[in-house]
Amino acid sequence: MNGENFCLSEKIVSSSYVRQGSQARRGHEQLIRVLLEQGKCPEEGWSEATIELFLNELAVMDSNNFLGNCGVGEREGRVASSLVAKRHYRLIHGIGRSGDIAAIQPKAAGSSLLNKLTNSVVLDILKLAGVRSAASCFVVPMATGMSLTLCFLTLRHRRPGARYIIWPRIDQKSCFKSMVTAGFEPVVIENVLEGDELRTNLEAVQRKIDELGAENILCLHSTTSCFAPRIPDRLEELAVICAKHNIPHVVNNAYGIQSSKCMHLIQQGARVGRIDAFVQSLDKNFMVPVGGAIIAGFDEDFVEEISKMYPGRASASPSLDVLITLLTLGASGYRKLLSERKELFCHLSQELSALAQQYGERLLHTPHNPISLAMSLSSLQTHGGAITQLGSMLFTRQVSGARVVQMGVEQTISGHTFRGFMSHSESYPYPYLNAASAIGITCDDVALCIKRLDKCLKSLRRETGDSEHVTDPAPLTEVRAKRNLNGLGYLMELRIVFFCS
Amino acid sequence: MNGENFCLSEKIVSSSYVRQGSQARRGHEQLIRVLLEQGKCPEEGWSEATIELFLNELAVMDSNNFLGNCGVGEREGRVASSLVAKRHYRLIHGIGRSGDIAAIQPKAAGSSLLNKLTNSVVLDILKLAGVRSAASCFVVPMATGMSLTLCFLTLRHRRPGARYIIWPRIDQKSCFKSMVTAGFEPVVIENVLEGDELRTNLEAVQRKIDELGAENILCLHSTTSCFAPRIPDRLEELAVICAKHNIPHVVNNAYGIQSSKCMHLIQQGARVGRIDAFVQSLDKNFMVPVGGAIIAGFDEDFVEEISKMYPGRASASPSLDVLITLLTLGASGYRKLLSERKELFCHLSQELSALAQQYGERLLHTPHNPISLAMSLSSLQTHGGAITQLGSMLFTRQVSGARVVQMGVEQTISGHTFRGFMSHSESYPYPYLNAASAIGITCDDVALCIKRLDKCLKSLRRETGDSEHVTDPAPLTEVRAKRNLNGLGYLMELRIVFFCS
Amino acid sequence: MNGENFCLSEKIVSSSYVRQGSQARRGHEQLIRVLLEQGKCPEEGWSEATIELFLNELAVMDSNNFLGNCGVGEREGRVASSLVAKRHYRLIHGIGRSGDIAAIQPKAAGSSLLNKLTNSVVLDILKLAGVRSAASCFVVPMATGMSLTLCFLTLRHRRPGARYIIWPRIDQKSCFKSMVTAGFEPVVIENVLEGDELRTNLEAVQRKIDELGAENILCLHSTTSCFAPRIPDRLEELAVICAKHNIPHVVNNAYGIQSSKCMHLIQQGARVGRIDAFVQSLDKNFMVPVGGAIIAGFDEDFVEEISKMYPGRASASPSLDVLITLLTLGASGYRKLLSERKELFCHLSQELSALAQQYGERLLHTPHNPISLAMSLSSLQTHGGAITQLGSMLFTRQVSGARVVQMGVEQTISGHTFRGFMSHSESYPYPYLNAASAIGITCDDVALCIKRLDKCLKSLRRETGDSEHVTDPAPLTEVRAKRNLNGLGYLMELRIVFFCS
Amino acid sequence: MNGENFCLSEKIVSSSYVRQGSQARRGHEQLIRVLLEQGKCPEEGWSEATIELFLNELAVMDSNNFLGNCGVGEREGRVASSLVAKRHYRLIHGIGRSGDIAAIQPKAAGSSLLNKLTNSVVLDILKLAGVRSAASCFVVPMATGMSLTLCFLTLRHRRPGARYIIWPRIDQKSCFKSMVTAGFEPVVIENVLEGDELRTNLEAVQRKIDELGAENILCLHSTTSCFAPRIPDRLEELAVICAKHNIPHVVNNAYGIQSSKCMHLIQQGARVGRIDAFVQSLDKNFMVPVGGAIIAGFDEDFVEEISKMYPGRASASPSLDVLITLLTLGASGYRKLLSERKELFCHLSQELSALAQQYGERLLHTPHNPISLAMSLSSLQTHGGAITQLGSMLFTRQVSGARVVQMGVEQTISGHTFRGFMSHSESYPYPYLNAASAIGITCDDVALCIKRLDKCLKSLRRETGDSEHVTDPAPLTEVRAKRNLNGLGYLMELRIVFFCS
Repeated sequence: MNGENFCLSEKIVSSSYVRQGSQARRGHEQLIRVLLEQGKCPEEGWSEATIELFLNELAVMDSNNFLGNCGVGEREGRVASSLVAKRHYRLIHGIGRSGDIAAIQPKAAGSSLLNKLTNSVVLDILKLAGVRSAASCFVVPMATGMSLTLCFLTLRHRRPGARYIIWPRIDQKSCFKSMVTAGFEPVVIENVLEGDELRTNLEAVQRKIDELGAENILCLHSTTSCFAPRIPDRLEELAVICAKHNIPHVVNNAYGIQSSKCMHLIQQGARVGRIDAFVQSLDKNFMVPVGGAIIAGFDEDFVEEISKMYPGRASASPSLDVLITLLTLGASGYRKLLSERKELFCHLSQELSALAQQYGERLLHTPHNPISLAMSLSSLQTHGGAITQLGSMLFTRQVSGARVVQMGVEQTISGHTFRGFMSHSESYPYPYLNAASAIGITCDDVALCIKRLDKCLKSLRRETGDSEHVTDPAPLTEVRAKRNLNGLGYLMELRIVFFCS
Repeated sequence: MNGENFCLSEKIVSSSYVRQGSQARRGHEQLIRVLLEQGKCPEEGWSEATIELFLNELAVMDSNNFLGNCGVGEREGRVASSLVAKRHYRLIHGIGRSGDIAAIQPKAAGSSLLNKLTNSVVLDILKLAGVRSAASCFVVPMATGMSLTLCFLTLRHRRPGARYIIWPRIDQKSCFKSMVTAGFEPVVIENVLEGDELRTNLEAVQRKIDELGAENILCLHSTTSCFAPRIPDRLEELAVICAKHNIPHVVNNAYGIQSSKCMHLIQQGARVGRIDAFVQSLDKNFMVPVGGAIIAGFDEDFVEEISKMYPGRASASPSLDVLITLLTLGASGYRKLLSERKELFCHLSQELSALAQQYGERLLHTPHNPISLAMSLSSLQTHGGAITQLGSMLFTRQVSGARVVQMGVEQTISGHTFRGFMSHSESYPYPYLNAASAIGITCDDVALCIKRLDKCLKSLRRETGDSEHVTDPAPLTEVRAKRNLNGLGYLMELRIVFFCS
Repeated sequence: MNGENFCLSEKIVSSSYVRQGSQARRGHEQLIRVLLEQGKCPEEGWSEATIELFLNELAVMDSNNFLGNCGVGEREGRVASSLVAKRHYRLIHGIGRSGDIAAIQPKAAGSSLLNKLTNSVVLDILKLAGVRSAASCFVVPMATGMSLTLCFLTLRHRRPGARYIIWPRIDQKSCFKSMVTAGFEPVVIENVLEGDELRTNLEAVQRKIDELGAENILCLHSTTSCFAPRIPDRLEELAVICAKHNIPHVVNNAYGIQSSKCMHLIQQGARVGRIDAFVQSLDKNFMVPVGGAIIAGFDEDFVEEISKMYPGRASASPSLDVLITLLTLGASGYRKLLSERKELFCHLSQELSALAQQYGERLLHTPHNPISLAMSLSSLQTHGGAITQLGSMLFTRQVSGARVVQMGVEQTISGHTFRGFMSHSESYPYPYLNAASAIGITCDDVALCIKRLDKCLKSLRRETGDSEHVTDPAPLTEVRAKRNLNGLGYLMELRIVFFCS
Repeated sequence: MNGENFCLSEKIVSSSYVRQGSQARRGHEQLIRVLLEQGKCPEEGWSEATIELFLNELAVMDSNNFLGNCGVGEREGRVASSLVAKRHYRLIHGIGRSGDIAAIQPKAAGSSLLNKLTNSVVLDILKLAGVRSAASCFVVPMATGMSLTLCFLTLRHRRPGARYIIWPRIDQKSCFKSMVTAGFEPVVIENVLEGDELRTNLEAVQRKIDELGAENILCLHSTTSCFAPRIPDRLEELAVICAKHNIPHVVNNAYGIQSSKCMHLIQQGARVGRIDAFVQSLDKNFMVPVGGAIIAGFDEDFVEEISKMYPGRASASPSLDVLITLLTLGASGYRKLLSERKELFCHLSQELSALAQQYGERLLHTPHNPISLAMSLSSLQTHGGAITQLGSMLFTRQVSGARVVQMGVEQTISGHTFRGFMSHSESYPYPYLNAASAIGITCDDVALCIKRLDKCLKSLRRETGDSEHVTDPAPLTEVRAKRNLNGLGYLMELRIVFFCS
């Protein structure tokens, strides 16, 4: 309510109460002011009340919500279903204009603000998460694969003669398809085995560049986050090679924001060499629904070039989701999620290692992979079908995300045949099982996964006599909160979680 | 509740009441059954209660909502904000898999059902709206422009050597950019002036094909829905040319579903010649938020090929919106919207024509354009800036969608210079103002638009003496409903709207 | 957003767009201003967006939503479940204070405003509906019966020696219990039969007063809305008697707001005689959930006395519901509902009459009852159980609200035995079936009811040969809207509904 | 979805995925089954998804949501506003029937189930909270005061000649008014001072009974939860007196469920003597909006008698709120809230004591009051107006619930004059300030309250030199969770909160 309405209210209820109410309103306005002024993720999360107030204010600024609007265009933001209108907070016009996904819409000042603020808040978080020198980014309502395609399509206009994309192998279909869809020929670089880890073959990369000619290469397409035993690419070295040969470098950082290691690799790569763009998923890093990605880079102009390559308007839904989420969490809440993930990664690693020992298997030694773990399944190898059976047993028992990788699978995608598919290598020496500690994982997830995996393995062995008990995991200690109580001092909150039988 | 729970309820409240409640539940189940069985848009719309019940049921089938699930993957459908979870009805996993946007997700049976059903219901509506022989379609969470890009990228794999896209000129940035982004060279075919209408230059198309060689042409890219005085392309003739030369044909049907004429053109084109795909916007045809499109075609395999070209998962949000909307409206509700739009098109046309006369202008004669109208602004031409001033006056008065088109504007987009930009012609003889009757338009929209336009024109003329009064529009008569009252006979509802002073 | 935040927004998106957005905001504020200023139901209904904006603004003013509040009281408006918080728009403090349900709460300026405005808007509607001289009213979160009890308890303090309440018989349990619960002895006045109608026995009332002594009578408790063949009490005459004897008069106007006749009776009664309070249900008159009532009167002091009699705070939920509903409908929307109800009453009456004829029955002639109808069931009388069977057949066929009334039922309530219970008379000559046309009824309701009733009667007769067809009802013509189009003239909308076979 | 629909779904998406989805559905059904079977608060809280699923299922059973219903009654559960429909989950029919608030409605099996289950779950919680032998209870949509009135009105029918209610003084208006409204004469028993505590004067009670005669006394009306320095009444002794004299005994347990001490008093009172009914607020004990209460007792028949005294239907809103809340929290969640409250009571007590010392005041010694604390304000006594000024300073600084009590205030309520009003005593020796630790209070509430109070006191003293620093509070240690991980062992979670500067 504006000043006039507060005055009128004072005639109805006591003016001192109304004045306090009006002051309270200013509290919310103040939070919004800081957001508009700084364009940063607030340190402390907002209440749902403030968030909804803010979104309603934005919606009021869009022409489809003008009380006196009359529309005679072909796109007026009308909504047939009130369920639909409400779930979008009546923000209907999407983001961008025909020329540019980052452009401002005359019909939709509120949606335009939403778009600009989201990109700004997300950039702030990318910096907080480790890529401190990121210059620009934008949220795009397409998943990582299609977003990579858009980057490649943009580069085509800079390097019209180029045909190839150099790509250290990672066995994930959409990465591969992102290049094929853009109309380029992926040049697959097999990884090298170092201990248990599969790692970028720098020499092979260099060799391929020499062989094909830098001018014929659209870009190098590297990967950070990946399933163990593959580990993040050697970004620093690759970035240096790219700089040397003047080859663009696009990084698939799909779920890497959640790992300080992945973010550090990108920051370092850009510092010592060349990285043109890095692309990450919204859902995998920010716990929002599938369907959005962030395209970021170190050169504002290039990022803008990509955003101008997207023809037409786009859905505001992923932007809305990530903005709501980040305002809810605040920077402190996001940092807390990151640190919890890290701790539970250690916990999962210990648990899995202990379980592996009991069954004569081992946790593969992949210290460079900060998110994904792999446990060998050598003993199941000899029994035909035991490995796939384990996979379907886990599925039935509602263990989701634990995937089994057999040896010797062959798969052809868009004309290219991958031997040893899913293992990132033509001949990885063991079959294995992957488990990951991704953002939002809980202690319960780990405990239930280990318990059910234990049961499945036991039942596969058909030996009940020798099964030892799971060893108790180490206690987790965590500083849950350190709140500055308005100068009163600090309120510390520790959380200690441990098992007892 | 299942049978067991209904039995238990009978111990708490009277069993005859519970039995009636359980029977009532079956009523909702029955509606869902028919949808699952037939995959068609229900004739009568569903209540919000049934829709929400159905969406909740779908959500329950997704692994992120399993009560006993434990997740150790990198993408588990976790949601940080409950505001976000709710606005998506807890359907978090999006649609598609890494290989194919139409594929089924093991983790998300509910979301997969949603995806399949939406595509099926939308196909039903495409048929109902006039393209009776459409074979297949899918909803894609990208706006029309990017969806066209995806079609072109798919065709590249079929025609690797082709560089050109033949494109009868339509002055809308994202159409043009959709080709440039895909990496092709648009070959612009200027329109011919027939009376007031701008129409496809068939000879020039034929000439260009001969000149460039059919094998070098990726496809012909034609347009149905467009701003007057341009009219829909001569789809039949173009389709015949494409068939003759074996050139693919992609139709931009952006907001054409709402017009039986546009749909008829596509149906006929496919019957007598060749149309490979036609692309339409979700928001412009179904009154949902911006950000989705439908890619449809007459050959199931080709449509599937396009859907497989999208690398990675995608947002389910546009699918959800359109499904909710169509279930709410029902086929009958959608048909009613279409017929209301048509009637108000006539009404707007009459009103605009009458107003034009008062100001010595005229409604351009564009009988082939079923959606958009144009009124000349010749008398403003002589006054420097009067035309743009009119545009901004209308904007300020909250008349949205009415755009003014000046003569002689030049604009360069991605290297191509368009003379007479916005008018679809290098030298259209008059400046003009566009107004459209798009789906969802109301009688009030028309009345307010005419009234405000009148005021603006009056104020621009600065002559108040000669302004005559707006003539009363003809009454609208409409059969609002003809309901078969369960065999009792028909209940007819007429609606008559007219002005009186 | 306040001015400062709009300014900041202009740095992010174009200032002309932001300015338009800020102007649009003022449009909503303006509606709120008028409400605060006048305290009346707006003529045109508000959009859901404006309503939610307004409720959010109110909520922000309550202390439980202050961002910096700290609470060390025993009632701080905390909410454990966010589902609960949201469904109440975070308005948690209820209405009133310990002393007075109409009092203002220091902790809750927003809830207090809500309470005051609701009472004011409801008073406006009572006047609009016909009781033009109503002086004051308040919404109370109790159903009609308990609200009547509260009135009687208040009167006790004015007439401490009184024991009796004079009550023209109406067979509805909660009316009777409202007196018993308050601790008084109801003196039942049997109705007289005039034609088919059961009407107030004025002489008997007068006789009882003389017999018991006016000073021993707490009040006269009369009824307007009731099931046919009983008709509204002769309020004018009763009011005159009350005035003469100085006896308070409380009117049970349960669902009478929807009928101009009932409201007129109250207005007239108060004009010519004495009415102290009239009580009406919220759900039955305003289509909101069960649980609220309006206590109204012609003397502000007496109404305030009642409101002060309610000990403690109370739920704001019914107030919130009725305010949302009236803001949504607007006065025009409510008037439209009233006129539709009236038309459908005629329609139902014709239909029922025609059906009755087919089965040798007749529609009882009860022209003074404006809401409820009765159709004789004499032919079923002879068959043991046929009447109750008809009742349960209708229940099973989902005809709700059609109740059958047998002859000779005896029931004892709180010690008083009613002969001929449910028929408002010790010996009404026929059994019958009631059907009512209440606010919100639709044409479909009538058609389906008649059709199913026909089937049930047919099946009860077990004679299929002689069933004639239902005659077509007369067409309904209605002026749906007469909108003043901002001076352009009037837009008339007629609606004509008729049957055809 | 039912079995048939799951089968149909298997034709659309893979049957193994659908089967897993259907199994997942059974998980939710299972939770509902246990609730229906046992009628108890589930140990672990339900997810919002399960709760909404359940409420939707209930709504589907009500006739207003039947797809084929036709309504010709005067109350059909129609809703004019969809905002209203949704916020009540489409449960519109309220609870109870005209005769009995606990009765089952034929039109509303779902609402009836809701009502029965809520009462059953709430009874379970009353037992869990300490009144193990409670026999029956029901939720009533009226606040505590009006609910007490209903109890007194019920007792009138048992004791028609009685006029008096014996009432140990507690200075809270609605308690007093509850008796006056019911038409009885409260007989105020002044408390005795024991140390700092104000306690029941048993002798005076006994004396009054002898004086008035037991048969003239409707009941004894005692209180548990109250502001310090008054403490809970001596319930055991009072109950014994009541039993001896055969006088009914009604306990006002307004916010006593949250305190095991208050609940223990009731349990003991009923064991050794007589307690007929005890009444408690919903909002103060369960963190739901204001407006509901629980009437409970040890004799099922008497509780039913009260429920039958409520004339007419009633709002289901408070029942819905408390059911949602208890299903969300689960018994474990509620227990946790109780233990947190207790801990923070100690914390608040220490803090307040330390602060008092600094200002030469003291925390009054009231060990029998488990919720409310009082700190003397003797030093402010001498300065005219300083005490009320402190009150308004705290209000302005958003410290809500901290009330100041002056000496010598006189107030007349319904004809009775209370000297020393608000202090529960005609002459309490000190002025003081109250603060309470009520359910839902947080560590932040305490810290902020102390900090702001400190500032206010400092500023009132106008002496800044001698203000010492707040001493750090003792750390809180708490077992947050002890979860049995499906037999794996226990997962313990400790939470330790402490201050550091």
